[in-house]
Amino acid sequence: MRLIDHHCHSVVRDDLTDAGFASLLTESDRAPVPGSSPWDSALGLAVRRWCPPVLGLDPYVPAAEYLARRRELGPAEATRRLLRAAGLDACFVDTGLETAGGATGGAALLSLDELAEAAGAEVREVVRLEYVAERASVGSGADRWADDVLAALTGAVRARGAVAVKSVLAYRHGLDIDPARPGPAEVARAAGEYLAGPATRLEHPVLLRHLLWTAVDLGLPIQLHTGFGDPDLTLHRANPSLLTEFIRAAEPFGVPLVLLHCWPYHREAAWLAQAFPQVYCDVGLTLSYTGQGARRVLAETLELAPFGKVLFSTDAYGLPELYTVGAAAFRDAVGAWAADLRATGCPAAETDRIAALPAADNAARLYARPAPPGGV
Amino acid sequence: MRLIDHHCHSVVRDDLTDAGFASLLTESDRAPVPGSSPWDSALGLAVRRWCPPVLGLDPYVPAAEYLARRRELGPAEATRRLLRAAGLDACFVDTGLETAGGATGGAALLSLDELAEAAGAEVREVVRLEYVAERASVGSGADRWADDVLAALTGAVRARGAVAVKSVLAYRHGLDIDPARPGPAEVARAAGEYLAGPATRLEHPVLLRHLLWTAVDLGLPIQLHTGFGDPDLTLHRANPSLLTEFIRAAEPFGVPLVLLHCWPYHREAAWLAQAFPQVYCDVGLTLSYTGQGARRVLAETLELAPFGKVLFSTDAYGLPELYTVGAAAFRDAVGAWAADLRATGCPAAETDRIAALPAADNAARLYARPAPPGGV
Amino acid sequence: MRLIDHHCHSVVRDDLTDAGFASLLTESDRAPVPGSSPWDSALGLAVRRWCPPVLGLDPYVPAAEYLARRRELGPAEATRRLLRAAGLDACFVDTGLETAGGATGGAALLSLDELAEAAGAEVREVVRLEYVAERASVGSGADRWADDVLAALTGAVRARGAVAVKSVLAYRHGLDIDPARPGPAEVARAAGEYLAGPATRLEHPVLLRHLLWTAVDLGLPIQLHTGFGDPDLTLHRANPSLLTEFIRAAEPFGVPLVLLHCWPYHREAAWLAQAFPQVYCDVGLTLSYTGQGARRVLAETLELAPFGKVLFSTDAYGLPELYTVGAAAFRDAVGAWAADLRATGCPAAETDRIAALPAADNAARLYARPAPPGGV
Repeated sequence: MRLIDHHCHSVVRDDLTDAGFASLLTESDRAPVPGSSPWDSALGLAVRRWCPPVLGLDPYVPAAEYLARRRELGPAEATRRLLRAAGLDACFVDTGLETAGGATGGAALLSLDELAEAAGAEVREVVRLEYVAERASVGSGADRWADDVLAALTGAVRARGAVAVKSVLAYRHGLDIDPARPGPAEVARAAGEYLAGPATRLEHPVLLRHLLWTAVDLGLPIQLHTGFGDPDLTLHRANPSLLTEFIRAAEPFGVPLVLLHCWPYHREAAWLAQAFPQVYCDVGLTLSYTGQGARRVLAETLELAPFGKVLFSTDAYGLPELYTVGAAAFRDAVGAWAADLRATGCPAAETDRIAALPAADNAARLYARPAPPGGV
Repeated sequence: MRLIDHHCHSVVRDDLTDAGFASLLTESDRAPVPGSSPWDSALGLAVRRWCPPVLGLDPYVPAAEYLARRRELGPAEATRRLLRAAGLDACFVDTGLETAGGATGGAALLSLDELAEAAGAEVREVVRLEYVAERASVGSGADRWADDVLAALTGAVRARGAVAVKSVLAYRHGLDIDPARPGPAEVARAAGEYLAGPATRLEHPVLLRHLLWTAVDLGLPIQLHTGFGDPDLTLHRANPSLLTEFIRAAEPFGVPLVLLHCWPYHREAAWLAQAFPQVYCDVGLTLSYTGQGARRVLAETLELAPFGKVLFSTDAYGLPELYTVGAAAFRDAVGAWAADLRATGCPAAETDRIAALPAADNAARLYARPAPPGGV
Repeated sequence: MRLIDHHCHSVVRDDLTDAGFASLLTESDRAPVPGSSPWDSALGLAVRRWCPPVLGLDPYVPAAEYLARRRELGPAEATRRLLRAAGLDACFVDTGLETAGGATGGAALLSLDELAEAAGAEVREVVRLEYVAERASVGSGADRWADDVLAALTGAVRARGAVAVKSVLAYRHGLDIDPARPGPAEVARAAGEYLAGPATRLEHPVLLRHLLWTAVDLGLPIQLHTGFGDPDLTLHRANPSLLTEFIRAAEPFGVPLVLLHCWPYHREAAWLAQAFPQVYCDVGLTLSYTGQGARRVLAETLELAPFGKVLFSTDAYGLPELYTVGAAAFRDAVGAWAADLRATGCPAAETDRIAALPAADNAARLYARPAPPGGV
């Protein structure tokens, strides 16, 4: 099965400590409480199920044994094997995170070329809006902030041949935002407030809204973080249904809006994908994290989401294991879904055709679209 | 298994184009994006599973083949076969939609007598509050609007022997409404605003509240749209839990409140049905749309909903296929639920008795109740 | 499998009428509508599945037969058998409910010593914040209310060797509360308002917030009612995600926050347990009430909840049957989850180790922790 991973991140270059590895198996950026380990989770079990065989061990060997084997092979070889095991044709990489955080903090990531080489896959870039805007803000001014940010985004998209942009509004404010495009004076005033403040982290709601609308102008598909993530966000404020008014306002511009992750609001996302032509959804991150639950979560998504609007991703970050697991979880979940369908009499040729849609065909169609006139 | 479909709509009289047919397989009223088709959805697959055999074809024949056979038979014969395959004893039809919309728009529907004849089922009417109120508003005045609407509703209910009324507050405002009954002066003022405006579509929150309370006075069961629907509504504002304060305020009047559809908030609806004696819920529309997922959605509903408070419906609209699929999906889902129960040792006589409650017994009991004194 | 029931209530001492028994099988405190019975629910079926064999009958005998046999044995013997069948090692009992309510109202409960003797289990106490505060308010004054309540809580915790405190904020206000600790003047003003009012029921949002922060000072784990319950609460306002700001504000104090019940927001609770070190969750009450659905609900919780953060409870109240059912439902659900895992190659020793975490090991670790310096 051809796989296009339409949203992921790069992986750590060097060896990780045991604690550093474990810290990338959880969305928490806090140290675990005594008696609790990130390995004792659905994701931990999924790593133990799918990854040891890739390194020549039995499934479910103890974590210590797995980590020892990983070190024996060295990070380059382990990474190559794990990425290749994912069997990806292409990866679209969000470059808004320059190092892997977690408990260790700051571990260097592979460059996109290195990632492509190790994975044996085409790699394309996804430009993160807030990240580029924060960098463009250095030395900018209130009155030219909007222009500087537009130039930086346009430049980043063109220079890197990006296939999409990405918004982390869910982290910076929540999705419960005023959907209207702010006027230039309002943006300049807000930029003044932001630039005068001590923080580089962009959290001003007016500027976050402005970034979304700038993205609409760019014309590339906009990926939006929705649903669960790290403790920075408030879960019920990351419900994609909160974007409905923005979706309506942006609809005339025809720019695809791709709802990422979505859990536990994947049913809400599925309905949005059915109701609005320009809305897509994925359950990347979710399928890895939910382990055995991935079959159920994918099936719940496919209750209402049109099969032509669902996208595969791993949202892997830091650990190449998350590529292995994300791809295996998707193959397993979509395979189980298709088997249930075949049990009702649906021909295998038809279930194969349908499974290929989220696996790769939808992404190939969506991200190949030319930007609208005036866009980048 | 006896089936009473307590909430549905009529079906299109004439042949549909391929696009017109497909447009009735989705809640979206927009054209599908290239590469996406309403057939490629859980509902599309459900139609391909259950309907071709009714017209003498194999399950899962390609859509084009199915549509060709449907045309060969002609709409009257195809409709008759599909409706009869649903095996309904009675249908309670919401007459607030006079034609089938979707991409084709305006296709004429069968009259209730024609529907009854084609389905071989008793047909009763459900009066849509907003529809009747909008018609009664023509030529009305601010001071007599409330009286005119009451007279129109009373007349409609009496003339047609209606079994229930229906509210689409979820579409017109959202369920997050002030639960208090507005006073006469407030209603007159709001009516003045509405009548002076350009719109016939009734969206004034005061008038929508007033309609709900008028329905309470009428004394018939009130069906309320909750959960997913077309892009007109905002999903999280259609969560039936938002009705809790209204449910509490209306409780002393004893009027049954029937929460329709509910997905993805069917668990919230189930709890409401357990907590409040006058609240009922259904998962009509949902079981058809979720296809293979219908078993899970019904099972989730039956986690908390008392078995005596859950109602079967198809919410079929436009396509007779939606009757076939809605009935088949319900039979399949309730059958699977009962089989799981029998596997724990529950006698078949008992699972049969329980399955008959949502299938028909609850509706027979609920809609047979006499209106309270003073009601219609 | 060792079981620690970390949140439950005592059971009725004497015989119950048929209606009184049924009233304890539902969260509703209203009389059921004609045609509907609490027995016809997932919980009713679960009682019929698991309890008759404990009294020497076949599973699923009619309710009348079961109740007759129960009376024949007498309440003491039936209670002893049912509690012993639960196989609990320890019960942590919330003593904020002095009698069993429901339709009968006011049935006397076993003392904690009697409960321990009947169950053959260690019994420890959980002190309910609002209950103690209401009692301490009698004869108190605005200026010393905070001191009186602190003294009463400290005294109750010390005198009874309590292992935790419990908040019913979800019932008294909803979890959508200002997370900030109120200042002394604000508390005194609010206490004045409350003491001057006619109600003993504590619903003042400032005082409820103050109680939470007093609990933080006490240093014991704080159990919080979240999710479904009786009709007193509004479901979407009991979503544990609404506590996120309070969780963040309380995090530096290190006090464990234990989210109880959670359904239908158990996925939100699971994420909170992953994101925040001091957050735990259980699905007590839920597993009993959802019957056949317990397997699905537990599996949904284990999608994101770290296995070291999930706790077993029955939340049994009034009926010893709810202990039997709660324990059986948990064993069945965790057993099914483990069987699915073993089917993917996970060794039985590993699934046994993991299953023991929510069953008892997590509670043993959590509630054994010494209170922080300055706490009780």
